[in-house]
Amino acid sequence: MGELCIHSVLVTGANRGIGLGLVRHFLGMSNPPKWVFAGCRDPKGQKAQELQNLASKHPNLVIIPLEVTDPASIKAAAARVEEQLGGSGLNLLINNAGIAKPSPLDNETLENMTCVYTTNTVAPLLLSQAFLPLLKKAAQGSPGSALSCSKAAIVNMSSSAGSIEEVYLWDYGQVVSYRCSKAALNMLTKCQSLGYREHGVLCVALHPGWVRTDMTGGSESLTAPLTVDESVRGMLKVLSSLSEKETGTFLDWEGKVVPW
Amino acid sequence: MGELCIHSVLVTGANRGIGLGLVRHFLGMSNPPKWVFAGCRDPKGQKAQELQNLASKHPNLVIIPLEVTDPASIKAAAARVEEQLGGSGLNLLINNAGIAKPSPLDNETLENMTCVYTTNTVAPLLLSQAFLPLLKKAAQGSPGSALSCSKAAIVNMSSSAGSIEEVYLWDYGQVVSYRCSKAALNMLTKCQSLGYREHGVLCVALHPGWVRTDMTGGSESLTAPLTVDESVRGMLKVLSSLSEKETGTFLDWEGKVVPW
Repeated sequence: MGELCIHSVLVTGANRGIGLGLVRHFLGMSNPPKWVFAGCRDPKGQKAQELQNLASKHPNLVIIPLEVTDPASIKAAAARVEEQLGGSGLNLLINNAGIAKPSPLDNETLENMTCVYTTNTVAPLLLSQAFLPLLKKAAQGSPGSALSCSKAAIVNMSSSAGSIEEVYLWDYGQVVSYRCSKAALNMLTKCQSLGYREHGVLCVALHPGWVRTDMTGGSESLTAPLTVDESVRGMLKVLSSLSEKETGTFLDWEGKVVPW
Repeated sequence: MGELCIHSVLVTGANRGIGLGLVRHFLGMSNPPKWVFAGCRDPKGQKAQELQNLASKHPNLVIIPLEVTDPASIKAAAARVEEQLGGSGLNLLINNAGIAKPSPLDNETLENMTCVYTTNTVAPLLLSQAFLPLLKKAAQGSPGSALSCSKAAIVNMSSSAGSIEEVYLWDYGQVVSYRCSKAALNMLTKCQSLGYREHGVLCVALHPGWVRTDMTGGSESLTAPLTVDESVRGMLKVLSSLSEKETGTFLDWEGKVVPW
């Protein structure tokens, strides 16, 4: 196990919540990545202020403009990351960007369903396609070794709310568009694990826990039990422990298997 | 168990394949429904010829124009069915219309993903919302009795290809857009079962088996083992046997539980 040992990582949706927490932890590692790429929609905007502050202190943090629902933006981001890596591969792609639109079952609309699916499910598919050449390159850079997140991995930020078996927190919020998108993301993760195993890329879906973020009602929320810091620390420990047999699985921030 | 005993049923995507098979079986029952509504995109077109032939022989068959991805068309179809029912409810809504776009993981596109999701996942959501008042009315018409398909039910035509656990027939076709849409449809079914139980509406997802239809390569396909007739006969037997404890489950044409 031990700490993750990676040369490079890209986190999407990195300007706040769990994404920002991941970036902070990568930068604070005793052996930090050479490059931490932080994807966010508007790198110069007010909402990216904390990322900008971090970047002024950490020259290994590169903020990447990225609108995850726009194939052209994804393509440009991949080119930008490739350029910065200067011939090396990308070890870790963390598809963290996600949205939720609270709505009861009877009020869900075509627009809601499509919008949430595009961000939460289709974007991780397109991002993984675009960064696959760089992930493959990282995997080829450590030949012979088994699958691991230190080698090459796609991490899809899912949720127990997307567990069909559990339907976690139904009484708290029906959010059917969100649940459907995360169940589909779990399927995508399983498909990616089957398709990308031969390239040496591990694929896993993570449930970060019920974390106090803007999405769950902000840091004043009385209900969500976990802080971003606790969740992120747990998830990074889980990632550092993954091997061949965990590719294509769905795990929570403590490493427990979540039922599909 | 015994045969389904229903006053009315609507089957979407009813002009061919499994949908047409379901319509034929309903019409051929010893105690057929008073009304069999067959939704199809273009009731007067060439592709609806077999439905038209059936309608000329069976006055209880009503062909309903229905483009399942168009909320206005769904609304018009619900009004048309309500009018025909003249005050009674609808017992059974079978969300059968579905599409598949063959494509390997690396070639999936935003357009493919969105298009397949809209038809296979969002449409069953919108149709269920639109027909819920008629389903409720049917449930209220048999007060006190437990959930059953003879009372009021939503049947979502899913697929083992949407089982995240099984990833059925991966080597036959990756069809990630299809798999994601069906995993999401399974989640929708579970959510509907939780939301509509209080209204007396049973909700279930069915895997019809691997059936020889246009979608699987036509009737000359050497690989798909089941005929439409075998699949439909099995599914109707399963539907007739369902009660309270099966709402929110995922079953195959023989009644076996399919893992999520």
